[in-house]
Amino acid sequence: MIVDLNCDMGEGFGVYRLGDDAEMLTVATSANIACGFHAGDPLVMHETLSRAAANGVQAGAHPSFLDLWGFGRRPIQGERPADIEKAVLYQVGALLALAQDAGCPVRHVKTHGAMGNMANEDADLALAVARAIRTLDRDLIFVVMPGLETEKAGEKLGLPIAREIYADRAYADDGTLVSRKLPGAVLHDPDSVSERVARMLEDGAIICLSGRRIPTRIDTVCVHGDTPGAVAMAHRLRDDCAAKGIALRPMAEVLGV
Amino acid sequence: MIVDLNCDMGEGFGVYRLGDDAEMLTVATSANIACGFHAGDPLVMHETLSRAAANGVQAGAHPSFLDLWGFGRRPIQGERPADIEKAVLYQVGALLALAQDAGCPVRHVKTHGAMGNMANEDADLALAVARAIRTLDRDLIFVVMPGLETEKAGEKLGLPIAREIYADRAYADDGTLVSRKLPGAVLHDPDSVSERVARMLEDGAIICLSGRRIPTRIDTVCVHGDTPGAVAMAHRLRDDCAAKGIALRPMAEVLGV
Amino acid sequence: MIVDLNCDMGEGFGVYRLGDDAEMLTVATSANIACGFHAGDPLVMHETLSRAAANGVQAGAHPSFLDLWGFGRRPIQGERPADIEKAVLYQVGALLALAQDAGCPVRHVKTHGAMGNMANEDADLALAVARAIRTLDRDLIFVVMPGLETEKAGEKLGLPIAREIYADRAYADDGTLVSRKLPGAVLHDPDSVSERVARMLEDGAIICLSGRRIPTRIDTVCVHGDTPGAVAMAHRLRDDCAAKGIALRPMAEVLGV
Amino acid sequence: MIVDLNCDMGEGFGVYRLGDDAEMLTVATSANIACGFHAGDPLVMHETLSRAAANGVQAGAHPSFLDLWGFGRRPIQGERPADIEKAVLYQVGALLALAQDAGCPVRHVKTHGAMGNMANEDADLALAVARAIRTLDRDLIFVVMPGLETEKAGEKLGLPIAREIYADRAYADDGTLVSRKLPGAVLHDPDSVSERVARMLEDGAIICLSGRRIPTRIDTVCVHGDTPGAVAMAHRLRDDCAAKGIALRPMAEVLGV
Repeated sequence: MIVDLNCDMGEGFGVYRLGDDAEMLTVATSANIACGFHAGDPLVMHETLSRAAANGVQAGAHPSFLDLWGFGRRPIQGERPADIEKAVLYQVGALLALAQDAGCPVRHVKTHGAMGNMANEDADLALAVARAIRTLDRDLIFVVMPGLETEKAGEKLGLPIAREIYADRAYADDGTLVSRKLPGAVLHDPDSVSERVARMLEDGAIICLSGRRIPTRIDTVCVHGDTPGAVAMAHRLRDDCAAKGIALRPMAEVLGV
Repeated sequence: MIVDLNCDMGEGFGVYRLGDDAEMLTVATSANIACGFHAGDPLVMHETLSRAAANGVQAGAHPSFLDLWGFGRRPIQGERPADIEKAVLYQVGALLALAQDAGCPVRHVKTHGAMGNMANEDADLALAVARAIRTLDRDLIFVVMPGLETEKAGEKLGLPIAREIYADRAYADDGTLVSRKLPGAVLHDPDSVSERVARMLEDGAIICLSGRRIPTRIDTVCVHGDTPGAVAMAHRLRDDCAAKGIALRPMAEVLGV
Repeated sequence: MIVDLNCDMGEGFGVYRLGDDAEMLTVATSANIACGFHAGDPLVMHETLSRAAANGVQAGAHPSFLDLWGFGRRPIQGERPADIEKAVLYQVGALLALAQDAGCPVRHVKTHGAMGNMANEDADLALAVARAIRTLDRDLIFVVMPGLETEKAGEKLGLPIAREIYADRAYADDGTLVSRKLPGAVLHDPDSVSERVARMLEDGAIICLSGRRIPTRIDTVCVHGDTPGAVAMAHRLRDDCAAKGIALRPMAEVLGV
Repeated sequence: MIVDLNCDMGEGFGVYRLGDDAEMLTVATSANIACGFHAGDPLVMHETLSRAAANGVQAGAHPSFLDLWGFGRRPIQGERPADIEKAVLYQVGALLALAQDAGCPVRHVKTHGAMGNMANEDADLALAVARAIRTLDRDLIFVVMPGLETEKAGEKLGLPIAREIYADRAYADDGTLVSRKLPGAVLHDPDSVSERVARMLEDGAIICLSGRRIPTRIDTVCVHGDTPGAVAMAHRLRDDCAAKGIALRPMAEVLGV
């Protein structure tokens, strides 16, 4: 059995850096690379692509709302899906160009922060993102949340989709993430994180905070790179998975595309 | 005899607009489209690409320094050519992606403002820009200034190059543009502008302020769209060219590529 | 009887300009000056302050969300009121400094776009804005919407408040503006705009789309400067007011502060 | 004998942080606070002001070119001094407003990065910065480089001036800093840094790389906060100064203003 471990990377800008990409690249199997709208600039993007290639980590685009100050985490209302589609095209296109120079294929797209959350609950927005991906390359993998609008949009447009679970985030009964503002939303204990991931992979189901199970295929597990202990947690996950016979492989390999 | 008439377009941002693109698209044969660094945003870029396609105007990328406040006109020192190469990749890649959606081929690249001026005088910088273009597509036309470093870089890397003259800017004896800060740098009178262009085309030479002639092949004439009277001047140029048997055709057609 | 006519001005950025400030300054009596977050830059702000002073027009600050691309019109969620308070301090402080150089007193503050709309409906946000104003200068006038949270916050903190009506926007029965997305939200006909304003001033009441009347003191009338016909509409308003014995005077004079 | 130890602080933006401000605030006596153009945002600025006040550290403004990507280190040409004057007014005004809320007086202004370097060599630019300071508050201290244009401008306009030396940067014979690009430009060894500072303070002279001495009054020593070992170096400096009977005190106290 194989599964992907994906992590956001290249979240620096100018003199700033976030997270320990060098370390995370030794354990993650897929990297979601910021494209300049919430983080990332041409230099950081190129460096991250080069390092992903050097570490055998699959590169993907991580488009966002244009919101450097808010790191793409603030829901911005009033954007039409057709406008967001163009913002996604812009960002993914920029990364594809840098990837051509870095000699690193781009295999997936995952929306970042508030854009991702909104796409999961808004069918039109999810379809707009999926259309942007399909326009650029029908073989690009769309990373989606099982049961939510992104999954439906990816299926509808016939994109290869990677169904994702979050290692350290609690789930509500509808399969959405519990808001970071609520207690218990973020799991910090490596033991329970690793154990919960293993159970979800073995059961083939999302396990909600309430105990409810939502059966789903699981292709990739997301770990956050910008939290303290992130690298340790990723190593722990890899080791625990290995002990259960689950190997980590890049997303495209898990999907067989 | 044919020649191209190129013009900067899509120089809006958010609620802002600059120049009368709708009118200019009826007379120009190539459009240099801002890519978000000095002007332009995904919506403006997409709209400009769509309108270029609808008007049979050739689309090209117009990358710049990241400088919205200064409209890319301020020389920014301290950038390494390798860094600027990545900034060009980013911008052209973003336009290519939007062009894929708009159904409008992108055929040329012309650097904007201060980046363009600096590239004309800095061999390393000119090569960096040319490398970025070649990485993306060896068939992309590089718009260059005859006799300057951009022309040499384009030739060295084997790119198709379009040699450009400026309709309304005075030339120093070395073939560079006279600084806008100096008197006589910008020509305003449509009669003398049109007459000078016709003479340069007929003579196959840049005519400098001093009267000096610099022989060169001329593929494209640049008119500025953001000055009052720009559209009228473009029409005048087209009519005067027609009267002399010179037809306006998109850059790629002039080069035969 | 006197009333103020306020208008947003200085909404340019870099090479961009919006609206015809020069004309509008000949008829408006108060100018809301963009502070760099949705429009405006130090040069535009200074020029607008200088021109307001030269025209005897009262200057005020027009702070916004940090959103140049969206012109401050997009609701940005997830900001704490305490954070917005600091963003308002920053912007108004910047304008106050430039005003010191331009020799133009700053007498009022009006929040722009989405921040304004949100403050009208969110008591905590309205109080945050009012606190920022009070911290800088207890004599600064807070421009508020009658009956909404901004009015309550201004009253609670003891700020001088200017109650404002919109010349060209339809009102819902709760005294909020009808969304621009809905039909009839924006009034375009100068006759009906001028007539409605006169009636509201004479009746001392907001007249809603339904015909409902909300009695209120009215200190200032807002006209938008960035719409076609804006200047003509402002002149029409002034003339019709004059015919009814209502003179236009700057906000501070209307309030007698 | 007393001298000030100044350090750049508040150089974060959004989710990003730079340097260990908390530690540096325990040893530095003056903080140069970024104002949003190269780093800093309203929240970071407010927090830094509050922490400076809590630690008894003197707060000052650290204005820059508008260049978040380049961290204000890139020389931007083509700005008129009168324009830069307005950009300085904007930034210092914004900080003054936040300081009013944070209850922390702002006592000095020091230009950042490329703007600082350019002001040291350009009399018009130095005067523009000094004028902006004088407009806001004639008692604000202008931090200057001995013998260079900033010192002359401060003297000419009658501002209180703090003459500054750099603890870890090599000096050319004209009193300017050796470019970071050249070998030996930055001193890394705490022993030699501390020893050189002590000698300069005792001799009352800048000691150039060549050994040349430039006699000057020295009011403040700059240490950089964003380099590894910065805090340790600052502690070392303080201890070595103390051993020689030189106490660290805020800039205003050193000047007696």
